Amino acid sequence: MILEHIKEPSAVKNLNKEELTLLCDEIRNKITETVSFNGGHLASNLGVVELTVALHKAFHSPVDKLIFDVGHQVYTHKLLTGRFDDFATLRQYKGIAGFPKYCESEHDAFEVGHASTSISVALGMARARDLKKETHNIVAILGDGALTGGMCYEALNDAGNEGRKLIVILNDNQMSISKNVGALASYLSKLRASKSYREAKIQLRQNAKNIPIIGPIFYYFAHWFKTFFKKLFLKENFFSPLGFHYLGPIDGHNIEEMVDIFTKAQNYNGPVLIHCCTTKGAGNQNAEEMPTQMHGIAPKQAQATKAVSAGKVAAEKLLEIMENDPSIVVITAAMETGTSTSCIKQRFPDRYFDVGITEEHAVTMCAGMAKSGLKPYFFVYSTFFQRCYDQILHDVYLQNLPVVFCLDRCGISGEDGITHHGIYDLGMTNTLPGFDVYNAYSQQQLESLIQFSVKNQNPMVIRYGKALCNLDFIEFKPRTWPTLYNCNSNTYIVTYGSITSEVLKASALLRENNIQVNIIHASSIEPLDLDFLQFVSEQNAHIIVVEEHMVYNGLSSKLSFIKDKNNYAFTLAFIGIEDKNIQHGDRDCLLKDCKLDYLSIANKVSDLVAKYEK
Amino acid sequence: MILEHIKEPSAVKNLNKEELTLLCDEIRNKITETVSFNGGHLASNLGVVELTVALHKAFHSPVDKLIFDVGHQVYTHKLLTGRFDDFATLRQYKGIAGFPKYCESEHDAFEVGHASTSISVALGMARARDLKKETHNIVAILGDGALTGGMCYEALNDAGNEGRKLIVILNDNQMSISKNVGALASYLSKLRASKSYREAKIQLRQNAKNIPIIGPIFYYFAHWFKTFFKKLFLKENFFSPLGFHYLGPIDGHNIEEMVDIFTKAQNYNGPVLIHCCTTKGAGNQNAEEMPTQMHGIAPKQAQATKAVSAGKVAAEKLLEIMENDPSIVVITAAMETGTSTSCIKQRFPDRYFDVGITEEHAVTMCAGMAKSGLKPYFFVYSTFFQRCYDQILHDVYLQNLPVVFCLDRCGISGEDGITHHGIYDLGMTNTLPGFDVYNAYSQQQLESLIQFSVKNQNPMVIRYGKALCNLDFIEFKPRTWPTLYNCNSNTYIVTYGSITSEVLKASALLRENNIQVNIIHASSIEPLDLDFLQFVSEQNAHIIVVEEHMVYNGLSSKLSFIKDKNNYAFTLAFIGIEDKNIQHGDRDCLLKDCKLDYLSIANKVSDLVAKYEK
Repeated sequence: MILEHIKEPSAVKNLNKEELTLLCDEIRNKITETVSFNGGHLASNLGVVELTVALHKAFHSPVDKLIFDVGHQVYTHKLLTGRFDDFATLRQYKGIAGFPKYCESEHDAFEVGHASTSISVALGMARARDLKKETHNIVAILGDGALTGGMCYEALNDAGNEGRKLIVILNDNQMSISKNVGALASYLSKLRASKSYREAKIQLRQNAKNIPIIGPIFYYFAHWFKTFFKKLFLKENFFSPLGFHYLGPIDGHNIEEMVDIFTKAQNYNGPVLIHCCTTKGAGNQNAEEMPTQMHGIAPKQAQATKAVSAGKVAAEKLLEIMENDPSIVVITAAMETGTSTSCIKQRFPDRYFDVGITEEHAVTMCAGMAKSGLKPYFFVYSTFFQRCYDQILHDVYLQNLPVVFCLDRCGISGEDGITHHGIYDLGMTNTLPGFDVYNAYSQQQLESLIQFSVKNQNPMVIRYGKALCNLDFIEFKPRTWPTLYNCNSNTYIVTYGSITSEVLKASALLRENNIQVNIIHASSIEPLDLDFLQFVSEQNAHIIVVEEHMVYNGLSSKLSFIKDKNNYAFTLAFIGIEDKNIQHGDRDCLLKDCKLDYLSIANKVSDLVAKYEK
Repeated sequence: MILEHIKEPSAVKNLNKEELTLLCDEIRNKITETVSFNGGHLASNLGVVELTVALHKAFHSPVDKLIFDVGHQVYTHKLLTGRFDDFATLRQYKGIAGFPKYCESEHDAFEVGHASTSISVALGMARARDLKKETHNIVAILGDGALTGGMCYEALNDAGNEGRKLIVILNDNQMSISKNVGALASYLSKLRASKSYREAKIQLRQNAKNIPIIGPIFYYFAHWFKTFFKKLFLKENFFSPLGFHYLGPIDGHNIEEMVDIFTKAQNYNGPVLIHCCTTKGAGNQNAEEMPTQMHGIAPKQAQATKAVSAGKVAAEKLLEIMENDPSIVVITAAMETGTSTSCIKQRFPDRYFDVGITEEHAVTMCAGMAKSGLKPYFFVYSTFFQRCYDQILHDVYLQNLPVVFCLDRCGISGEDGITHHGIYDLGMTNTLPGFDVYNAYSQQQLESLIQFSVKNQNPMVIRYGKALCNLDFIEFKPRTWPTLYNCNSNTYIVTYGSITSEVLKASALLRENNIQVNIIHASSIEPLDLDFLQFVSEQNAHIIVVEEHMVYNGLSSKLSFIKDKNNYAFTLAFIGIEDKNIQHGDRDCLLKDCKLDYLSIANKVSDLVAKYEK
């Protein structure tokens, strides 16, 4: 066993070829074993085992800075940087994170979770390095999927202009999470098919053998070598107009080859892009054959439970409506599987658009569609909705275009951690009066919402968590908040979305202790149910908001504001998220951390009711 | 006079060469005359006179859709589409807008104001057209400055992948607002210098003369022509890997040449990019020689008043500090002049970074710098701050990196109109507890804020409007709101930023009517001055918030929330912006529209005080 003895990444520098092969096998086994149980990103990590080993062989982390884009491919890096012993806790509560974390190791040079940011970070660090007259290497490692994001282009264009020393490693596995899209993806395929570094090197060696190494001829050989090398690796291509030297394509599973090129790249005094070709899921037959399905896999425990997937409900209902409404089109930003919209792609390939990891473009493109009379539905996670605020505001909202945003993974995301929680989106829409925001809690209600959205003429968000609650059918009425539990009490819990099931459990517990509270589902944040609020006000009653969202700019602050604005007479109390530092782990553990589990809710409500009754 | 008789753009189709030349002269005169008085975008509009005439000659608006990027180059388009008679009201209150407006004319196919969105819009419209089996042309017209924005690349990559019919016209004047930056800008220069269409055509004609046009030879000629044409215009270059056919470069001041190519492009069954070379400010010596200074000019009236420029104060104070603090660096996204930071660029060119129209990249790049120990200051307008919400949240806030955002043009922007008001930014930061937000009102206080920010360890926003108030010096203390007017009253107006001067005028007026209210400046939105709020609460007093920001998610809703959270006993009332539809015009007129002028404020406060005293 080699892996368990590696405490610092520099240890890989002394390993010979056979040991490295063994090491990679051990890493693959460790990753597969851990992810099978804990869940996590399998295929993306298996694809970069050799690449990561080569990085640590050629560079000197933490002096050299390795910036991983997205960060869903750092398992090998974590195993080589002193986290082997704790690796079994991967993605678990208080365990090792699935993404880079500076608090875990100084080898994690920057924290990340969203795509396409690495070159910008690296350029910032390179500028800092040069101003401080330091000389270390800065390396951004990104996939061809991340390269669809416009920020990469902005950063390449900026970096290439200056000619500052910077290394970008393109891990080209021809995939985003699903198969990669965009014209550039086809172009990269062509490059992959071109004469590779290895073939060229073999040819070079053969030619070299025929040249006697003596005096002046050696000089010519050296000159010829330089020209030949230049010809091979500094091809004019897409990256040259952006000011980058292009090296490659090289085999991203051949450590020796990569170390050779990575070392050479360190001697270039300018920006270099190294094109490494890898196979997503390499070394695991299932993952190689089904990289999309095996990109991220759920924890073993979660695989057993069969909660209703909200995304699937939304997509299937919309598909049903699309059969009779040709104006509806569906857009995803490289999240076909995550958003459960494959069924729509299969049935209506002409009305389904996967635009790559490009949330900004996606939204403005939707605006163009809506302006031309189509009804676009953009399926996106709450956390990625953050990436297109100006497009939502400037292109959709100001012109009041009827684009529908199906916002998946609202609330606490669980194992993906701090960068992935869907707890900020209302901060964006609450600023925009007239931008409709609806929340789903049960299957029937989500289906009604999808049906309602078709005719709704405003920009509109439909929010849902990963799972839905099992609840009896209550007829959906716009701007009317349904009562989920009705009793003789002047206290009203107003809640919404996935946390509703914890609230219902809390309410059951409270009843056991003879505490009765009404439970209302805030099906819409905009518009508010003003009739309900007026009614509660007239009773001088109490509202307790329970929300799985930041209370600052969530429903809490919105109700506070409207209460002061309309002079309502009810009291308000808040139970929600107040701290950004919600890490990763099982949802139930994280809810407890936020005091949003049913026990904490019950306790808090009980205290409040006691206070109200005084 | 030809221009005044053009009521519909189709009228230009019948004009001969001489008439077109005359028309362009008339347009230039009209634009120069109007902009000199009303203010507006001069250089960008003078550069595209011929280009716009050629567009209307070759295409059939409004059936064909012309999508102007940014929209600060549509004056010629407006003059040719029935708005000549009203053109004297350009950018004035209730007059013609400076940007495309659908309500003015169906020829304005999409409303816009921010950069780099046009290709996304056009692609959305092209997809809609094809699904609806329509056949019209869709044309995006964008400058090389807008092309630095990553959205353009996202859209090109997406459009190029499909091979759908779409025309992109690149108006290359080698400028953003200032001189264009980025590696691609140099690349475009090289293309400009390459053999142009005109030269090629001359060569073609000369060659053609030597070929006798008879039977089979004609066939060969036709074939040769095709190959030659292809060779000339379908060069392999930056745009080919993105799936676009490249045509050009052509002379963007030669109408005949452009109409020829625009017409040919309509017969291409795929995405085409046409590279037109223009001179910013063409036909006006001043504007040609100083295109940056003449990009946007102020209304004649405004030029006379000499208000203190907040941006200038901030930049000069920072420059002073930079002399002794080598860690400070300054970043702008193509807004060197607008943000008044030229003085810093001149003194410290190595510590000044103009990254192009790339707010997203700019912020994440700042995060990389901060992580490496620098102290980055990003100077940006409030309205463009919207473009980088996820980068602020994901890259700066979650890692608590000390990046400072100097937010210029907070509040009502005036003549630029609906897309440019800085009235949404607090909606972003209010969601993020611990993200410091400070407001400036006077020169000394802004200088103190800049000084304070250097040592502040949190991410931080410093907000200011275009101008500052002339007020006596009050010592700056963090998290302490200064009292601007102190009296024996239990009513407190809490206000911030530029609107403070209106509030002070209102207060003077109220005093004349024997109504006394205290005036407090909310120098920070985060942190709030909790000591003050506690004090007011203990008095059971009244707070009236006056803010030049959306009240939803402004200081208003934040105070409402904290009041309920901390059980404060004061009452709250709000005077602020409640409607997105604030158009363009003189700031004073727009303030009246929003009821934020001093008279409206005085009236509202007077009513509230009367109510309090009951």
